Amino acid sequence: MAAHSDTFSIRTRGKGTYEITSEVASMVAGSGIRDGTVTVFVRHTSASLVIMENADPSARQDLEAFFDHLVPEDTPYFVHIYEGPDDMPSHIRMALTRSSEVVPVINGRMALGTWQGIFLFEHRRAAHERQIAIAVVGE
Amino acid sequence: MAAHSDTFSIRTRGKGTYEITSEVASMVAGSGIRDGTVTVFVRHTSASLVIMENADPSARQDLEAFFDHLVPEDTPYFVHIYEGPDDMPSHIRMALTRSSEVVPVINGRMALGTWQGIFLFEHRRAAHERQIAIAVVGE
Amino acid sequence: MAAHSDTFSIRTRGKGTYEITSEVASMVAGSGIRDGTVTVFVRHTSASLVIMENADPSARQDLEAFFDHLVPEDTPYFVHIYEGPDDMPSHIRMALTRSSEVVPVINGRMALGTWQGIFLFEHRRAAHERQIAIAVVGE
Repeated sequence: MAAHSDTFSIRTRGKGTYEITSEVASMVAGSGIRDGTVTVFVRHTSASLVIMENADPSARQDLEAFFDHLVPEDTPYFVHIYEGPDDMPSHIRMALTRSSEVVPVINGRMALGTWQGIFLFEHRRAAHERQIAIAVVGE
Repeated sequence: MAAHSDTFSIRTRGKGTYEITSEVASMVAGSGIRDGTVTVFVRHTSASLVIMENADPSARQDLEAFFDHLVPEDTPYFVHIYEGPDDMPSHIRMALTRSSEVVPVINGRMALGTWQGIFLFEHRRAAHERQIAIAVVGE
Repeated sequence: MAAHSDTFSIRTRGKGTYEITSEVASMVAGSGIRDGTVTVFVRHTSASLVIMENADPSARQDLEAFFDHLVPEDTPYFVHIYEGPDDMPSHIRMALTRSSEVVPVINGRMALGTWQGIFLFEHRRAAHERQIAIAVVGE
């Protein structure tokens, strides 16, 4: 039985989804753990995680467009906009998706389905360096 | 200390919520683990998981109706609709709920509250065979 | 390798967000676990969890206002309103956020980012006693 934790960072180019599946898969492989879970955690409140279709980019474009419509930058009652009109919408889009994704590890590999990829969802307009923490637990 | 992982599948009859609490509870009991966590993970991007009130079915009907309104099938800017008008809404409804649910295991049982059940949330109109991966980790 | 699970309760004063970061951090410290994960789980379907900005209270006020607008109490098609107009909206706001948060533990501490706090999100108007289950797993 063992636990391995680590962090890595990813440089975003502003709003959008960035696949991190291979980085996570490498850490699972490096842990030597055969059965258990991997936890992926984003250490920010204006970026989040989502497991999404990884085949057709139009699915992610529609997802991003939906969140732009659902949480508009010009929402009149937002007070927390010190860093710009994308400040508060970023926090809400984060809250509506996930700060962590937990994936079972079976026979040394993540039990992702055929079309599932793990994506960092950057909600700020500007490029950011985002830190991801990973923990693999099992035996 | 131990880790047990397994998969099972559930046949849906199209859109709606399907309780899987007893299947998960059986795997927790079978693992022999007394303290730790159970991770439930859906291996698809057009179905998701939600922990929901399990007493009155009207709560789940309202939940399903809300998601139908929040992510309409006829959203004019959706591009990813190759598989029909329920294609892209399915992915978004998945992203707004959860791909995994993690429940503490205490004294050999999930620490669910009195009214909590674990449900697969099928977002496609057609019946589907859905795969669920489970990992119980602890001691 | 070890697993420690426990529960605690928090008394809410009705709708709003209530920080529980220090309670969770204490349980992580008390577990003696250096590397692994901590799972925080709310045992209710009308309250949820969210990791949110913990510096400026206006961010949480805007978050709460957004959910009030997104899931209005007077939604005409809601049937499950036996306990009042905040009954069904509470369940949906729970489903749109999270029942569990899982945070990696690295060197004996949660790997939270600088601005991240863990909050209980109470969705009912009335004060409630809410139970939180915690599981720390690792080595």
